Amino acid sequence: MAVNLARRLLNEGHAILAIDDLSRGKRELLAEFNEHPRFAFEQLDCGDADTLSSAVDKLGAQIDHVWHLAANSDIPAGLADPRIDRDRTFQTTFAVLDVMRRHSIPELHFASSSAIYGDLGDREIHEDIGPLLPISNYGAMKLASEAQIRAAVEAFLPRADIFRFPNVIGVPATHGVIVDFIRKLKATPDRLDVLGDGTQQKAYLHVDDLVDAMCHVSQLPGRYKVFNIGPKDDGVTVRTIAELVRDRVSPSANICFGEGNRGWIGDVPRFRYSTERLTNTGWTPKLSSIEAVRRAIDQIACEESRNWSKP
Amino acid sequence: MAVNLARRLLNEGHAILAIDDLSRGKRELLAEFNEHPRFAFEQLDCGDADTLSSAVDKLGAQIDHVWHLAANSDIPAGLADPRIDRDRTFQTTFAVLDVMRRHSIPELHFASSSAIYGDLGDREIHEDIGPLLPISNYGAMKLASEAQIRAAVEAFLPRADIFRFPNVIGVPATHGVIVDFIRKLKATPDRLDVLGDGTQQKAYLHVDDLVDAMCHVSQLPGRYKVFNIGPKDDGVTVRTIAELVRDRVSPSANICFGEGNRGWIGDVPRFRYSTERLTNTGWTPKLSSIEAVRRAIDQIACEESRNWSKP
Repeated sequence: MAVNLARRLLNEGHAILAIDDLSRGKRELLAEFNEHPRFAFEQLDCGDADTLSSAVDKLGAQIDHVWHLAANSDIPAGLADPRIDRDRTFQTTFAVLDVMRRHSIPELHFASSSAIYGDLGDREIHEDIGPLLPISNYGAMKLASEAQIRAAVEAFLPRADIFRFPNVIGVPATHGVIVDFIRKLKATPDRLDVLGDGTQQKAYLHVDDLVDAMCHVSQLPGRYKVFNIGPKDDGVTVRTIAELVRDRVSPSANICFGEGNRGWIGDVPRFRYSTERLTNTGWTPKLSSIEAVRRAIDQIACEESRNWSKP
Repeated sequence: MAVNLARRLLNEGHAILAIDDLSRGKRELLAEFNEHPRFAFEQLDCGDADTLSSAVDKLGAQIDHVWHLAANSDIPAGLADPRIDRDRTFQTTFAVLDVMRRHSIPELHFASSSAIYGDLGDREIHEDIGPLLPISNYGAMKLASEAQIRAAVEAFLPRADIFRFPNVIGVPATHGVIVDFIRKLKATPDRLDVLGDGTQQKAYLHVDDLVDAMCHVSQLPGRYKVFNIGPKDDGVTVRTIAELVRDRVSPSANICFGEGNRGWIGDVPRFRYSTERLTNTGWTPKLSSIEAVRRAIDQIACEESRNWSKP
């Protein structure tokens, strides 16, 4: 998502200081910006406020917006060691706010998650719903981040946007169900093992739609704005994704399902996601969940085969 | 509250390992337990999981319950330096959960706060309300703690209770509006300066009622229980408290009010607090807000005059 957002903001004429610890991303994903006169990059841990602040000092220009996307995206890893989510998902937010206060940066755009809601069963999830019952450390630390941002808006921060979105797919892809399935089929072309029974259903948003929605929301008035971002449909099952990937990558493979409708602890099996607040502002996604899945499978399959063919 | 809870649990026959960093409390407040055969005390930072875990190892007995009350209670201090709430309010919860996992301690009772709700205006605040918009770092880090506990219940923790309560008063008193007013009048017996215009109204719960409610809730069935605890009334204004303290401590003093109805950033001016979930289980507080305030003023005035008369 960071690459797609950077491309968009540069195209709009903004200058960017991109910061990443490259713990999960790769520097080469940013190669297209290397010669860009309005693009700078620093490799550092966003959870370290002093280092982050030094990078802002070094830039020597006033920053007007922070797009805070840094987080641990590996939910099972955060389950095994909660410090990962605490440090990469919550502490990065804490440090970003600290630096925004020190440097009087007025506007924060924060990539939160539908994971803050937890498993609310069949209830329709709108932004003001309660109770919030995150069931993963990832969701807990995104909620902790939102809480800290809300308090910062009360204390010193002029403006903040909170974007809550479900699964995002597209390229560049570093993780997620589609990448997993494609890589599994590369390793064992005759068999695809799926966590859970395949009935798990999720909404999928294409990264191009997500970036478009975030930029749209960032232009709306309001001091503290919270928006669900997602497709208008109820999503696609894991079974459908497995079949589409198999058909695209290795048509003769057998798909072997596990048991239960959760892939891992902290995984929400299905939910109904209201994006009415967003669509009421005039924005709608270009792709439905199934269209986003089909496009992402094509894009990721191409990307992965390029990677495989590299020496 | 820790002292009152310890007294209650010892009276019920439990054994206690009390842990406190004594950053705001005093060891002498626990003097009454010094000779008790079922009471042990360790001075350490609850935010340090390894040290906390060593204390549990050293105890050499299986622990069945954790009552986690550790937090920064100085909201303005947390506003000036958000690290205080992060480290003392959130990180203590994080470390406690870590230690509970390591030692297979099955049950957590957590002192949360009405501050997680933020300023919801005239809406009646029940436990499932949304959105949650904490306006202090204290409230944000209590919400972060709740979120982390909820995720822990999903992952490994068998049982957790969340107690959300407003202002608690009684003795021993280390901070709060009544202590502040009494100490101000001790310093300047003819004048009492009040932050804000005095119209700020809050619900007050006496610590004896709070401890009784927490013990009551801890006995109810359920894996993850969230309860508001508070009086049934809408509270008492700061003006009333100031007048009652003045009448008790220094009747001839002038009360000088400030402006606005917030004492500090992050302070919620008034709210309607639903305790219906709790009263439906058969528990009701013995004291109303005004009764709690009157009793606490008497108790704290006595306590403070004892302190002043010490050599």
